[in-house]
Amino acid sequence: MSDLDDILRDLVLANRILAHEGVVDAYGHVSVRNPTDPRRYFISVSRSPELVTRGDIVECALDGRPLRSEQRPLYLERFIHGAIYEARPEVMGVVHSHALEVLPFSISPTPLRPVLHSAGPLGHRIPVWDIADRFGDTTLLVTDMTQGRDLAERLANDRAVLMRGHGFAAAGRSVREVVRLAVNMPRNARVLLDAIRLGGPVKGLSAGEIDRRLEMRPDGNEFYRAWEYWATRAGCADMLADRPRSVAVAKPAAPPAPARKKAAPKKAAKKGRR
Amino acid sequence: MSDLDDILRDLVLANRILAHEGVVDAYGHVSVRNPTDPRRYFISVSRSPELVTRGDIVECALDGRPLRSEQRPLYLERFIHGAIYEARPEVMGVVHSHALEVLPFSISPTPLRPVLHSAGPLGHRIPVWDIADRFGDTTLLVTDMTQGRDLAERLANDRAVLMRGHGFAAAGRSVREVVRLAVNMPRNARVLLDAIRLGGPVKGLSAGEIDRRLEMRPDGNEFYRAWEYWATRAGCADMLADRPRSVAVAKPAAPPAPARKKAAPKKAAKKGRR
Amino acid sequence: MSDLDDILRDLVLANRILAHEGVVDAYGHVSVRNPTDPRRYFISVSRSPELVTRGDIVECALDGRPLRSEQRPLYLERFIHGAIYEARPEVMGVVHSHALEVLPFSISPTPLRPVLHSAGPLGHRIPVWDIADRFGDTTLLVTDMTQGRDLAERLANDRAVLMRGHGFAAAGRSVREVVRLAVNMPRNARVLLDAIRLGGPVKGLSAGEIDRRLEMRPDGNEFYRAWEYWATRAGCADMLADRPRSVAVAKPAAPPAPARKKAAPKKAAKKGRR
Amino acid sequence: MSDLDDILRDLVLANRILAHEGVVDAYGHVSVRNPTDPRRYFISVSRSPELVTRGDIVECALDGRPLRSEQRPLYLERFIHGAIYEARPEVMGVVHSHALEVLPFSISPTPLRPVLHSAGPLGHRIPVWDIADRFGDTTLLVTDMTQGRDLAERLANDRAVLMRGHGFAAAGRSVREVVRLAVNMPRNARVLLDAIRLGGPVKGLSAGEIDRRLEMRPDGNEFYRAWEYWATRAGCADMLADRPRSVAVAKPAAPPAPARKKAAPKKAAKKGRR
Repeated sequence: MSDLDDILRDLVLANRILAHEGVVDAYGHVSVRNPTDPRRYFISVSRSPELVTRGDIVECALDGRPLRSEQRPLYLERFIHGAIYEARPEVMGVVHSHALEVLPFSISPTPLRPVLHSAGPLGHRIPVWDIADRFGDTTLLVTDMTQGRDLAERLANDRAVLMRGHGFAAAGRSVREVVRLAVNMPRNARVLLDAIRLGGPVKGLSAGEIDRRLEMRPDGNEFYRAWEYWATRAGCADMLADRPRSVAVAKPAAPPAPARKKAAPKKAAKKGRR
Repeated sequence: MSDLDDILRDLVLANRILAHEGVVDAYGHVSVRNPTDPRRYFISVSRSPELVTRGDIVECALDGRPLRSEQRPLYLERFIHGAIYEARPEVMGVVHSHALEVLPFSISPTPLRPVLHSAGPLGHRIPVWDIADRFGDTTLLVTDMTQGRDLAERLANDRAVLMRGHGFAAAGRSVREVVRLAVNMPRNARVLLDAIRLGGPVKGLSAGEIDRRLEMRPDGNEFYRAWEYWATRAGCADMLADRPRSVAVAKPAAPPAPARKKAAPKKAAKKGRR
Repeated sequence: MSDLDDILRDLVLANRILAHEGVVDAYGHVSVRNPTDPRRYFISVSRSPELVTRGDIVECALDGRPLRSEQRPLYLERFIHGAIYEARPEVMGVVHSHALEVLPFSISPTPLRPVLHSAGPLGHRIPVWDIADRFGDTTLLVTDMTQGRDLAERLANDRAVLMRGHGFAAAGRSVREVVRLAVNMPRNARVLLDAIRLGGPVKGLSAGEIDRRLEMRPDGNEFYRAWEYWATRAGCADMLADRPRSVAVAKPAAPPAPARKKAAPKKAAKKGRR
Repeated sequence: MSDLDDILRDLVLANRILAHEGVVDAYGHVSVRNPTDPRRYFISVSRSPELVTRGDIVECALDGRPLRSEQRPLYLERFIHGAIYEARPEVMGVVHSHALEVLPFSISPTPLRPVLHSAGPLGHRIPVWDIADRFGDTTLLVTDMTQGRDLAERLANDRAVLMRGHGFAAAGRSVREVVRLAVNMPRNARVLLDAIRLGGPVKGLSAGEIDRRLEMRPDGNEFYRAWEYWATRAGCADMLADRPRSVAVAKPAAPPAPARKKAAPKKAAKKGRR
């Protein structure tokens, strides 16, 4: 089972990576479920992801209440995370982002869909949630569990949901997987937008191709290559020092969860990589 | 009431942030009204915002004359600021920018409007001012109070006005609020442009949603999160050292001004944030 | 008359600025005419502008031959510069660039025209030169004076000429002026392209507005503000140490050349600026 | 004949340059054929190109098996390289990239074609390979020699082939030449996309112009200028210390290969450049 230190180190790294890759900016956040207690998740207090350090991480119950008395302000929209963890037992990591490349698809009738192999894990459907459908005129922010649950209901069993005029939420089987989804989603959106502009029918991934990508394991060497690269670019190579290969992957509680490979011993992994 | 040192520190920070976030470049400027004397405002001498330091800030009367004898050249277009302060008692900060993302909407019949939740504070209308309508063939620069007043008249009670083929001017209830407006405006423009290219009707914010966003306070934790982030990115984290929370907010001289929260003591704010 | 050291320092700065602002990359170049002998110009040997230092600058006759025996390779396309200096006595600086934002207008029937106030100095017409019209199938490079003169002929009395599928050449009354033109041209192209995409008629600068911009002096405080900013961004603030205000401006040899202001003494300029 | 140390230094540089110029990111790779044994090629183990060092380079047979026992994971898609080397004796360097600017052309009926002089070496045809045509629903990755050979067959005698929803593969007569192709390809794609958006017919390079560009030598001063610039930007100027001018150019085994110039002695080259 994954060690808590590794989990939290990955969460800090996830914050820095998402910021450096332009997926989040002053706003947006990422969380990881507590692998030893699925009724809890870890998330930063209200800070921009680029500035998040280990000391900013707090643990919350699924309803958004911090487990320890906390005087620092929390993210107003943390209910996005808890509501998705509540509805989806296999989900271990959640990202909320306002990435500009994705947003046009949240306010247009043109659906976002995977056209790049790397976006295959976004799955067969990327629904759009409009907060106004049920809550009328709001600030568009998800500020309580009722709104969070409505969003999670629209997400259903998919990997990502667009939030009209606001951003998206993505769910993964590990924090590394959801970071990967969140990095690839804006790239896929940009290429789709440009292909539409070229005119003529755009060839997206077939249903079978999406299935092949969904079957890929959310760890392994190919995954690690990107994680190492992103961490290095974000100036956090030192946080890779022990090259942790263990990833919080859910027990096969739901259909899309893959068989879990026994994590390689760290020493061997280190030697193998160098 | 806000301390003058905090005001001027925020103004220097505003210059650096706007430059680093790409809202201004060699040109463009930002000012803050003197909270103790509404007939005066602070602005840099003629320097690019990225290079502005405390020593570059001077105080001007609303008509653009510096209060102290000044040998350094001043911004040619400072009349934009004075004219808006003159017409709008509740406005405490003004930004003038040439951001490229916004400019297409200044030369096209397609109106700019809020489609992102973060752009809701831009309000119900973003008018376009064409200097040629009243002044004929000019350099397009606003070089005296007559032109500045014409611009302010077109702005009327709105938050931002596009200047045809030139840029925009935005007005806020504090320098931090107007910086926020100015950062979000190009992002909103980019997303709207891309959504239009996707084809089909684009869903913008509803009138009620814009009202909800206009009601939000121009300070508070969510605001501070972005301010801290932008300042850090701009290399000015040290200017946040005492984490000032007080913001120059106008007394409720006009309808949209919100009730003013008592500023938290600095010590408590500092402890709470760490 | 301008001092040669200032001229050459400005030329090195021009190289660095154009590189840092993304106007040139591995290729592209900038030159300045020798103010004391109009039959000669200064240009770097064959190096990317970002890497150019004082020692890379050589002096060439208008036909492209170096004045001193030179073993280092020269730019293949230096004939662009000589041919324009030959045809246009008032031109003191020339830039050749492959800026990507401008290139679409060189291969499309849609003409590039000034829509931004800062692009007004591009003038009433920006012709497109197609090397194939006279020279058939080539590498598209301007590799001798015959081709250079054909390009200069197409430029005629304008400020900039697009080169089909290749780039542009711009001409100014000083190296600083032509740098400014070259920086603003891609920005104008980008805004025009985006405005066209919005649909509906695009409002460009009127003929009278272009004239007002053409009349502006190619020096002065507003010009210096950008020069200081660009140099600082390019990491060359130290090259501004003595804050040179003198600029190589041509004697009024041709209609568009403005009256020349007496350069302020350096000491006074320095004091005034700080 | 080229020295192996120079070849490998160039390969590390190629990795860094492609990463820094945005042609590859976490994924994508570059290889060079062993000039002394055409049945082998050099490539990094599975690392992101920006992080590749000399110690990461391994030698593989054309079928993708490493020549020495190797415990580190290799690139899953290295078969792209071997299959192209197998089919094309004159090819000495191969790049595989996911550059976002190129991808729209891989999923749209609009063909990519050279419109910029610098993209002339892409040749008369840039085919699109759709892995589904022969292999049905896959992950879109090229994971064995059968798939690699199918890709190489579609590439045929051309310089680059798009891979539907995935990226492109490019082939050159030296690693420097293929880096150059790979850098110019996204730029050409971007300009073509923007020109199409402007409307009206887009004028690309003529067949004769493409031939003129294809005839240009893949080394020489003009080539070196870009190599020096890219290496410096990537922070690898020190790897240019001995300014190697020798490039692995194939013996004229195939029609498009140019006559090979005798490499200048290093000492002379160094003196001439400084």
